[in-house]
Amino acid sequence: MKIGILTSGGDCPGLNAVIRGIVLKGTTTYDVEFVGIRDGWRGVVDADFFPLTRHEVKGLSKVGGTILGTSRTNPYDGSRGGAENIAKTLYGHRIDGIVAIGGEGTLAAADRLATDGINVLGVPKTIDNDLRGTDYSFGFDTAVNIATEAMDRLRTTGDSHQRCMVAEVMGRHVGWIALHAGIAAGAHAICIPEVPMSIDDICDLVSKAHDRGRAPLVVVSEGFTLTGMEEAYSDKGLDAFNRPRLGGISEVLAPEIERITGIETRSTVLGHIQRGGSPSAFDRVLATRLGLHTADAIIEGSWGQMVAMRGTDIVRVPFADALGELNTVPLYRYEEAAALFG
Amino acid sequence: MKIGILTSGGDCPGLNAVIRGIVLKGTTTYDVEFVGIRDGWRGVVDADFFPLTRHEVKGLSKVGGTILGTSRTNPYDGSRGGAENIAKTLYGHRIDGIVAIGGEGTLAAADRLATDGINVLGVPKTIDNDLRGTDYSFGFDTAVNIATEAMDRLRTTGDSHQRCMVAEVMGRHVGWIALHAGIAAGAHAICIPEVPMSIDDICDLVSKAHDRGRAPLVVVSEGFTLTGMEEAYSDKGLDAFNRPRLGGISEVLAPEIERITGIETRSTVLGHIQRGGSPSAFDRVLATRLGLHTADAIIEGSWGQMVAMRGTDIVRVPFADALGELNTVPLYRYEEAAALFG
Amino acid sequence: MKIGILTSGGDCPGLNAVIRGIVLKGTTTYDVEFVGIRDGWRGVVDADFFPLTRHEVKGLSKVGGTILGTSRTNPYDGSRGGAENIAKTLYGHRIDGIVAIGGEGTLAAADRLATDGINVLGVPKTIDNDLRGTDYSFGFDTAVNIATEAMDRLRTTGDSHQRCMVAEVMGRHVGWIALHAGIAAGAHAICIPEVPMSIDDICDLVSKAHDRGRAPLVVVSEGFTLTGMEEAYSDKGLDAFNRPRLGGISEVLAPEIERITGIETRSTVLGHIQRGGSPSAFDRVLATRLGLHTADAIIEGSWGQMVAMRGTDIVRVPFADALGELNTVPLYRYEEAAALFG
Amino acid sequence: MKIGILTSGGDCPGLNAVIRGIVLKGTTTYDVEFVGIRDGWRGVVDADFFPLTRHEVKGLSKVGGTILGTSRTNPYDGSRGGAENIAKTLYGHRIDGIVAIGGEGTLAAADRLATDGINVLGVPKTIDNDLRGTDYSFGFDTAVNIATEAMDRLRTTGDSHQRCMVAEVMGRHVGWIALHAGIAAGAHAICIPEVPMSIDDICDLVSKAHDRGRAPLVVVSEGFTLTGMEEAYSDKGLDAFNRPRLGGISEVLAPEIERITGIETRSTVLGHIQRGGSPSAFDRVLATRLGLHTADAIIEGSWGQMVAMRGTDIVRVPFADALGELNTVPLYRYEEAAALFG
Repeated sequence: MKIGILTSGGDCPGLNAVIRGIVLKGTTTYDVEFVGIRDGWRGVVDADFFPLTRHEVKGLSKVGGTILGTSRTNPYDGSRGGAENIAKTLYGHRIDGIVAIGGEGTLAAADRLATDGINVLGVPKTIDNDLRGTDYSFGFDTAVNIATEAMDRLRTTGDSHQRCMVAEVMGRHVGWIALHAGIAAGAHAICIPEVPMSIDDICDLVSKAHDRGRAPLVVVSEGFTLTGMEEAYSDKGLDAFNRPRLGGISEVLAPEIERITGIETRSTVLGHIQRGGSPSAFDRVLATRLGLHTADAIIEGSWGQMVAMRGTDIVRVPFADALGELNTVPLYRYEEAAALFG
Repeated sequence: MKIGILTSGGDCPGLNAVIRGIVLKGTTTYDVEFVGIRDGWRGVVDADFFPLTRHEVKGLSKVGGTILGTSRTNPYDGSRGGAENIAKTLYGHRIDGIVAIGGEGTLAAADRLATDGINVLGVPKTIDNDLRGTDYSFGFDTAVNIATEAMDRLRTTGDSHQRCMVAEVMGRHVGWIALHAGIAAGAHAICIPEVPMSIDDICDLVSKAHDRGRAPLVVVSEGFTLTGMEEAYSDKGLDAFNRPRLGGISEVLAPEIERITGIETRSTVLGHIQRGGSPSAFDRVLATRLGLHTADAIIEGSWGQMVAMRGTDIVRVPFADALGELNTVPLYRYEEAAALFG
Repeated sequence: MKIGILTSGGDCPGLNAVIRGIVLKGTTTYDVEFVGIRDGWRGVVDADFFPLTRHEVKGLSKVGGTILGTSRTNPYDGSRGGAENIAKTLYGHRIDGIVAIGGEGTLAAADRLATDGINVLGVPKTIDNDLRGTDYSFGFDTAVNIATEAMDRLRTTGDSHQRCMVAEVMGRHVGWIALHAGIAAGAHAICIPEVPMSIDDICDLVSKAHDRGRAPLVVVSEGFTLTGMEEAYSDKGLDAFNRPRLGGISEVLAPEIERITGIETRSTVLGHIQRGGSPSAFDRVLATRLGLHTADAIIEGSWGQMVAMRGTDIVRVPFADALGELNTVPLYRYEEAAALFG
Repeated sequence: MKIGILTSGGDCPGLNAVIRGIVLKGTTTYDVEFVGIRDGWRGVVDADFFPLTRHEVKGLSKVGGTILGTSRTNPYDGSRGGAENIAKTLYGHRIDGIVAIGGEGTLAAADRLATDGINVLGVPKTIDNDLRGTDYSFGFDTAVNIATEAMDRLRTTGDSHQRCMVAEVMGRHVGWIALHAGIAAGAHAICIPEVPMSIDDICDLVSKAHDRGRAPLVVVSEGFTLTGMEEAYSDKGLDAFNRPRLGGISEVLAPEIERITGIETRSTVLGHIQRGGSPSAFDRVLATRLGLHTADAIIEGSWGQMVAMRGTDIVRVPFADALGELNTVPLYRYEEAAALFG
């Protein structure tokens, strides 16, 4: 049997550990042959394959990024895309199936290809933890660790200068990184896409922390938007909130917090450092186990499914479990953390 | 209401985060009053209490160790111990209940005290992850991260000198730290108390890795013992295995591996560095959430229970769920990892 | 003898270690009494003092920030400022001298106060390493470590996506952090205030690295400006370079690099995380030694001087040695590093 | 011109960065050809060479260990050793000179070979910082960082249990790592080979720290020996100090400290983790600069010399400057630190 592996979408610590897990178990336990597919679905469409032996994956559990490269290509796009063309390409190269490691878009494409008769297995990948069907996905723990360590650093500056520090973390649609890093770092306010907050709500929390003698720390997801922003501030010139011209929401919040509370405020956008580098031990273990179980799923022909984490176990679930709705932060999880702001 | 909090047994990253979580939610949401109990059950027996307000717990989510101190005292020991004396002491100080954060011994004592009519709540604490009733306990993730990082370092020395490196990690009765750190660091053999291995089994794995051009990495739990050790080596002088006179099992294994395989071998006992220092983000979040839920449990009068992690949730379980048998590594988890040794 | 200690200007890892070093040696070896001065020169002007014993400084060698607080107040400003008022205030509180830990502005003020008859000792503080008279200053090594680790992370993202990554680090007037972190992280271009470069110079280096199959990494000091920027791009709309509206120079460079080279390019501004948190061992040792030698200098009455690092030694130099010109990166140091870009 | 590069002795963070620096500058600036010599002097004797291009050294600045392998072979040993044989071997492979990166033994051999007419350049390598002729050597800063971080962790355990913690660090003949890590971590006693101390001296410091409410931290170099050990304890059974049967000096000290002071005491031998893994930024910069300057020295034919660090500069010194006496900790540096023990 010959299987192709691809990684798709943004890079994420643990991708290489998944690849290593699949290849090590697949070759030594099951005698499967593997090819690497370059740059996600683009490599499928372009038949850009290369042999992937245990030699290529050695030492990879701790290496960030992906040795396969990645792209945001959709396999149904372009003249060479689509299930029929892909089936021909795979047949031509004697590839019996594909493991697609990616986020929502990738898994949706994988689901459609599976329906169209292609042998596809999925491994969920989301640094934001926005996929349903799995308790957590690899990369998330690493990102939370990096964000937490950065906020530990910001606090000493805040304390020394009696400043409010605003830290912007990843999370375009869901607030998991902000929630967990905020709890871990002892933030005084956590602003996430799921929970509407006005600038006054935030300033209340900031002022309360300041009144208790603390240097306020606000953590905000990149995807957070202020409620009442337009109405409340239209008379003051909407320009201040014209986000595309600024680096991020934290750069909107910081001057407003300073203006309203009178507390000197600085913002930092953590940016790409959250998604790079060596994975945490948790992510290495999770990613490796997902890879090992994917090798089993290949042998058992569980096409059309993806591997996932449930409690302490690795299970298989249909693609549909991860699709449709995002894994948003439930209100009770936000309220649980809000007890710390008091 | 007035509640005492104690920490008992070995220190563990996250203890302070639990204490902070309880006190912050207990005081701000519920208006509970707290006292710190010094040095575990000793402080209960000796009535060694001090006020614990939100001021005392500020900034503690990232601080290792325990501000309450700890000891291995059994509350039933000594002339001032026992449920009746403790009940009097608590009544005398108007303390309505105790939160005991500790491992198996502590929870067993807490269970007995609860049966004897004392209001006790438990928070499971085990850096080895040896308690049942909870998916994971705080401190474990930090220990695995530290052990993994140490092994990443050992590998470069092994590679440069073409040596076999043996790393001994914590785990007196269970092999979770060895298993997870071994997977994360890409170990070529993992030796845990749950799985019998002879020195020849280990040397086979070492030689196979060496033959593939790798510098073999062996990770071993402190509680691992070799099978057939006495029989096989009695003629060679059992002294070599006389463990109490040596630092640990790794110091038994290293010379034997070198002797049998002919590969230069060095051992390192990671020791106390695994349990100290700032907790990982995962452990800070878990410990804080356990603390927050303990505050809820106090208000709801859930005496005789402990808080625990199940999947992504915090739940309450009877003490009995954590007692009796240890949470050992199941064979399928070892075999899952063994596919990597190939 | 009673001595006041103040910290002034931006916070910097190692400030607390200096304070601890002064107080520990001053109290135990010499029986000097210390007071902390709150928020830099503001505390001198406002007579905002508090007792500083060995108890207050315990455990501080590893703690970032400053327990004294800091500000950017100039001691000669305001109605209560000036040497005469300060002399009265110090006399009134029986304070025999001041240790001022700060950067160029602070040391210039200290120099003037010393000339005006106040007993002042200086400790050079600059995270950017822009002060002359000392080989290095504490905080710089920590900042370089943080920036290097961040760039190690950025590289995996660059490699996975075949992108150019631009990292902006601290360095308003001098390029030391960019130079050292760039060497350490293996950057393909280093842009510093001291060395004029045009966008074409940078793009040449980026393209050369890309042609060798590398994901180009560009590190840029926040104070870097492009040569020929205005002339070359005025016809394309200067707006793209209208820096005040953007987060930093890296956000100017990234789109231009992408436009000219055709290589997808992302930027990250590391920002405040470079100056916070626990100091590196190097900075803890340097800061502690500077503190210990300051205690000696107090006893020896070396007023009007500052302590400094020369090779492996701590020496005393007149304030003037650190003032006047900044410690810029000499051209030969830039050219030395440029050999790596080839 | 064709030059061979070898690494010899124990591995050390920064070796790969030196190699990369030499090869990058040597090939791109000077058009020198390089061969890697496998496993130190053994590879010279056995003519075990391989081409070393810029491709082989890419990304190496952050990689621990050495891609060349290492051994402790002496080039004058064996039937194929000696200057004459080596000259023939080098001539046969058209190798014009050797860069030897190593410690005292390596540099002594290099010196002798140079005297015997072989073109040799040296790069000093000592993680213990025991070589004269250079302010610091790469690897030392990384080791101090690792030891400091480990001791930060040990302290939380010490504090929680009110224990004395003894940490044993590298330093066979000199105490630099213990001195710097001890200062950085705030140790209460530092025991180094250069300074005689009795068990009572140590216990005095431990008890004083304990009396001030601190959990005492003792850092000890592996090469430290107690004064008066034999005399004072011969009546109590010398066995307790029979070091070869124990893991290290810390395992001698801990039980004695506990016996004499009555304070519970634990020891940890940090061991090999101090020399492995990714170098600190300081070491990457130093190692890279040493490599770059070695390329210059090759071109300039500075055979018989080694590159070294002086203040902020890289210089060349004769081998003799590094040989003869070790770079021990001078007494004034120990006494400087002792002011912290108070």
